Amino acid sequence: MKILLVGATGTIGSAVRNELTLRHEIITAGRNGADIFVDITSPESIKNMYQTVGKVDAVINTAGNVYFGSLSELTLENNEITIQSKLKGQMNLVLLGLNHVNDKGSFTLTTGITMDDPVVGGASAAMACGAIRAFVQSAAIDMPRGIRINNISPTVLEEAIEEYGPAFPGIVPVSGKKVAQAFRKSVEGAQTGQTYTLYC
Amino acid sequence: MKILLVGATGTIGSAVRNELTLRHEIITAGRNGADIFVDITSPESIKNMYQTVGKVDAVINTAGNVYFGSLSELTLENNEITIQSKLKGQMNLVLLGLNHVNDKGSFTLTTGITMDDPVVGGASAAMACGAIRAFVQSAAIDMPRGIRINNISPTVLEEAIEEYGPAFPGIVPVSGKKVAQAFRKSVEGAQTGQTYTLYC
Ligand SMILES: NC(=O)c1ccc[n+]([C@@H]2O[C@H](COP(=O)([O-])OP(=O)(O)OC[C@H]3O[C@@H](n4cnc5c(N)ncnc54)[C@H](OP(=O)(O)O)[C@@H]3O)[C@@H](O)[C@H]2O)c1
Ligand SMILES: NC(=O)c1ccc[n+]([C@@H]2O[C@H](COP(=O)([O-])OP(=O)(O)OC[C@H]3O[C@@H](n4cnc5c(N)ncnc54)[C@H](OP(=O)(O)O)[C@@H]3O)[C@@H](O)[C@H]2O)c1
Repeated sequence: MKILLVGATGTIGSAVRNELTLRHEIITAGRNGADIFVDITSPESIKNMYQTVGKVDAVINTAGNVYFGSLSELTLENNEITIQSKLKGQMNLVLLGLNHVNDKGSFTLTTGITMDDPVVGGASAAMACGAIRAFVQSAAIDMPRGIRINNISPTVLEEAIEEYGPAFPGIVPVSGKKVAQAFRKSVEGAQTGQTYTLYC
Repeated sequence: MKILLVGATGTIGSAVRNELTLRHEIITAGRNGADIFVDITSPESIKNMYQTVGKVDAVINTAGNVYFGSLSELTLENNEITIQSKLKGQMNLVLLGLNHVNDKGSFTLTTGITMDDPVVGGASAAMACGAIRAFVQSAAIDMPRGIRINNISPTVLEEAIEEYGPAFPGIVPVSGKKVAQAFRKSVEGAQTGQTYTLYC
């Protein structure tokens, strides 16, 4: 398959790339060091990316910033970071990408454990993840041409536990290798509307 | 209790008002025919409302527009209607209202069945509902001064079945009276972070 991978240089993105590159043609996209430039917070940039790429069999997104900080610090401006990137960035990749995905192709988006297992500081992130999960479940029954859509919700990755561990006391991390298998299942499998959780 | 009810003239809002007015002082807010003007899509308007109202024991929101239409018609502009109103409108009522709610007070927001039981046309609504549910669950553990937060997710109301029924084939509607009890439970009870579903 020809797979467009947005966020390929990130912690999750590189794990997904390593796994899928064995069997597929991967085109990477991101703001730096990728085959194609894209800033998912800009609809224009997303449109340009799809124009450049043409048709693909799968779009995977592992990009998406969130504001992390206690509720008392969650200003409207901070919350907007999450809305523009993790929420609208991901949704717009789907809404603007529908015509660029081949029949029976797929979208795979990234959510995360904050939507199911709250931590202090995670309310904005949880909001975006919950939005994407519900969007995926609902959009799945209205996709044209057999196109599928799923989302992957990992706990903190082993590769990121030093950075995020302190905010998730008692969390048991998951390996990037295992997370990548969920993306593989979404892309190479036939399910749609699903949330694959990787909570330990 | 002194309760601020945003969206009091709506189908759900009037049912909630009828129920709670028996035991509480209700201040209504909305764009038309309410005690206080508010447009929840405008942060300035929300701030002005809270300045006018002062401190309350509970904020209930039953306002929030969504775009309803098939995925192929879900443009970024259409989706923005949902994001500005049902998603950010509700979140901003909380973020801007924290200092206006008394100790041990509460917020109660409104979601809906589309987030759990998808229908064609409901992807944008589902997105906003999923966002609010996850935000509520996460914000609940980080609320100051014992303030609580819940959301109510009704199926289609009996009072609205003529309007919405055709888009929800096979749905069994719920009475506004029953939905109002869930709001009562949220306001007069002691639970937090909850989603009260009213699916038949
Ligand atoms: N790491 C974890 O443990 C973990 C666990 C659960 C969920 N998640 C979620 O998974 C997602 C990815 O996490 P991660 O740790 O892999 O992130 P990361 O290491 O920071 O990588 C993010 C990737 O996305 C790209 N990117 C960021 N903003 C972008 C934008 N506006 N437009 C296009 N590309 C952009 C980055 O490259 P450029 O900066 O060059 O664009 C990079 O390739 C996030 O939404 C995160 O919340 C992460
Ligand atoms: N009715 C149902 O069967 C049902 C079922 C499940 C979920 N829901 C959800 O519950 C919510 C309320 O539904 P409803 O049927 O009761 O709606 P509705 O009858 O249209 O009433 C909406 C109320 O909110 C106010 N409002 C609308 N936009 C506003 C804004 N920007 N700022 C301030 N107030 C605003 C309206 O008054 P003004 O126009 O005067 O401002 C009115 O009081 C919606 O989010 C809907 O999706 C409804």
